[in-house]
Amino acid sequence: MALKTSWVASANDPDSDFPLNNLPYGVFSCGGGRRRCGVAIGDSILDVSGMGPAGVFDAGNWNAFMALGPAAWADFRAEVTAILAEGAAERGLVRQADAQLHMPFAVAEYTDFYAGRHHAENMGEMLRGAKSLPANWLHIPIGYNGRASSVVVSGTPVRRPLGQLGQGRFGPTEKLDIELELGAVVGTGSAMGQPVSVAKADEMIFGFVLLNDWSARDIQAWEYQPLGPFQGKAFATSISPWIVPKAALEGFRRPAPAAPLPYLREVRGGLYDIELSVYLGDEQISRTNATELHYSAAQQLAHHSLSGCPMRTGDLLGSGTISGPTAGTFGSLMELSWNGEKPLKLANGERTFIEDGDTLTLKGHAQGEGFRIGFGTCEGTILSAINTPDWAR
Amino acid sequence: MALKTSWVASANDPDSDFPLNNLPYGVFSCGGGRRRCGVAIGDSILDVSGMGPAGVFDAGNWNAFMALGPAAWADFRAEVTAILAEGAAERGLVRQADAQLHMPFAVAEYTDFYAGRHHAENMGEMLRGAKSLPANWLHIPIGYNGRASSVVVSGTPVRRPLGQLGQGRFGPTEKLDIELELGAVVGTGSAMGQPVSVAKADEMIFGFVLLNDWSARDIQAWEYQPLGPFQGKAFATSISPWIVPKAALEGFRRPAPAAPLPYLREVRGGLYDIELSVYLGDEQISRTNATELHYSAAQQLAHHSLSGCPMRTGDLLGSGTISGPTAGTFGSLMELSWNGEKPLKLANGERTFIEDGDTLTLKGHAQGEGFRIGFGTCEGTILSAINTPDWAR
Repeated sequence: MALKTSWVASANDPDSDFPLNNLPYGVFSCGGGRRRCGVAIGDSILDVSGMGPAGVFDAGNWNAFMALGPAAWADFRAEVTAILAEGAAERGLVRQADAQLHMPFAVAEYTDFYAGRHHAENMGEMLRGAKSLPANWLHIPIGYNGRASSVVVSGTPVRRPLGQLGQGRFGPTEKLDIELELGAVVGTGSAMGQPVSVAKADEMIFGFVLLNDWSARDIQAWEYQPLGPFQGKAFATSISPWIVPKAALEGFRRPAPAAPLPYLREVRGGLYDIELSVYLGDEQISRTNATELHYSAAQQLAHHSLSGCPMRTGDLLGSGTISGPTAGTFGSLMELSWNGEKPLKLANGERTFIEDGDTLTLKGHAQGEGFRIGFGTCEGTILSAINTPDWAR
Repeated sequence: MALKTSWVASANDPDSDFPLNNLPYGVFSCGGGRRRCGVAIGDSILDVSGMGPAGVFDAGNWNAFMALGPAAWADFRAEVTAILAEGAAERGLVRQADAQLHMPFAVAEYTDFYAGRHHAENMGEMLRGAKSLPANWLHIPIGYNGRASSVVVSGTPVRRPLGQLGQGRFGPTEKLDIELELGAVVGTGSAMGQPVSVAKADEMIFGFVLLNDWSARDIQAWEYQPLGPFQGKAFATSISPWIVPKAALEGFRRPAPAAPLPYLREVRGGLYDIELSVYLGDEQISRTNATELHYSAAQQLAHHSLSGCPMRTGDLLGSGTISGPTAGTFGSLMELSWNGEKPLKLANGERTFIEDGDTLTLKGHAQGEGFRIGFGTCEGTILSAINTPDWAR
């Protein structure tokens, strides 16, 4: 793999997230105008709202295009590549600096998995006293249904949630946290009662985003038995604004660990070599790689359909928190500060959990030879909790 | 409360589910034609697709009407009541026997709660060895996000799911079960970051349906730690086809038990005196009442919003399995057969869990003086599992 050069000079910078090799899908507006579908190239955006089959971009998101399936995705990608390749006729572009970015797709349902082995072991040690995996973990891609209505695009402020922090304890969370994840965007659906194979599931995936599954650890710890996380996760999930096409990541595939049951067997590597990092303000606090995951998105999607549960265009699958084996590679503050026991030393103070006004940013890219397939950033700034309403006093 | 009489004679039968006092909302079609919104009256349906604000019923479901809010709901109900009251001019109706019923609304997201105290105690005893509630249960309306894509209307066949039944065990569930629940349909939404009070939540609720949260107990038992139920519930949830208006149930309100924290305090009774029963084939196997619930739908909705999670038109909230205190009043086969240890004696054999070809039916009504507010039926017949696909062998 080498850089594919573009007539957009900024796309040829080896540090650009958006070379011609990438061409991720987003939604933008300018000056409060209507939302339009666009493809990122260097520091600019190609407005594609007039391209594709008639009406496919009319809704101002990528869902209708996603539903067209892999052949249409490939044709469109070839067309956009030709338009932006070095030597093609130059045309007008929108500068990213002049555009506001929006949710690239309407989330049908959001499911969050738990495929980070180091994360699962760390959580087990902190919450259940033993650095061991749950009995089912190596056999089944553990996941739970999350809340789609609170998935927001990078840059959206996040309000510190109120909740029950323990028995009789009501108030703003005191343990606000991030979870560093990849999100897989489901392009085509499946029929009710019809499980899909890992190979088929891989074909159904449209692309990937960075995903921050904001978590309130005190709310979560009190509520999660026996039916799992609920309000401790429901207040916000942030995603990066550009859906990186699966096609752009082909050269970065890596095999997932072998799964014990045949229905989870991979035919192509479904993990990706994507370098990931977390920033608090301007300071990097963690760095890891998506190959730390134990199950691929395709395996998770296959498992999701196993019971016959129909999957739909716009479903979003969180990978689970991605943590490496050592302290500087953990994907949550819960782990980085070891549940608050070992505060992080920062240039301007210490942190256990997130404070009001903090900005947390996820970054990620796959590193090619002289180019990168970048995800842009996934960031959010924390607003203080609302005053407790009269009816809650 | 007494019967309000209608010019539709069948609506005045004291055993009719659909007197003038009820007027529930459904969606029907005739002879494969387009889906139209209708209101049930006796054995017939009033086609309302030309009523209401322009275009509000164009989508062939009640969502746009639901979003209009309580004042519009009350106006419309008064208008339909006047049209169908004794003495009004008779007009053409559709016979229910000639109509096919469809999903009355598009489910935005589905959340399932766990508010049946006897059910929670029974499950604790069977799964965790002690007839005790989880530590948080009396303090917090425990719930989890379910899967909206597999919510189907009564009458839809249900395919026995495949799954992991335990470590290394793959196949069709051997413990297929029902859960007898009420479903609350959210009419108007709430803003992100803005919790709502129980009083406000009550206003947001449009109406109620019967709900069967089909469950695969072996899949559930193996998968649910630590993140809750997933594929053991995701294959199907059935609802009755008519949304009973909250207004029709006003006279049947009952208070929920006192909640320890102020934000869950009720101002009006949010439980309802609704008689419920379960049939296997033609045989009644359980009978209970919705007043067995510990938390009201309004309390659950308020809790759902507490973190700032935005609620939306079309959200569906399952009450949790409704069980009474004794064996003949339990809302699941897991409880009725005590996890298979005490088979149910039926006229034509025994049952522990559900067998292929079985039809399970939920029924419910609030009993007035000389009339009932009925829910119709919520039924499903079990199809055998698909053959294991080659890729899963």
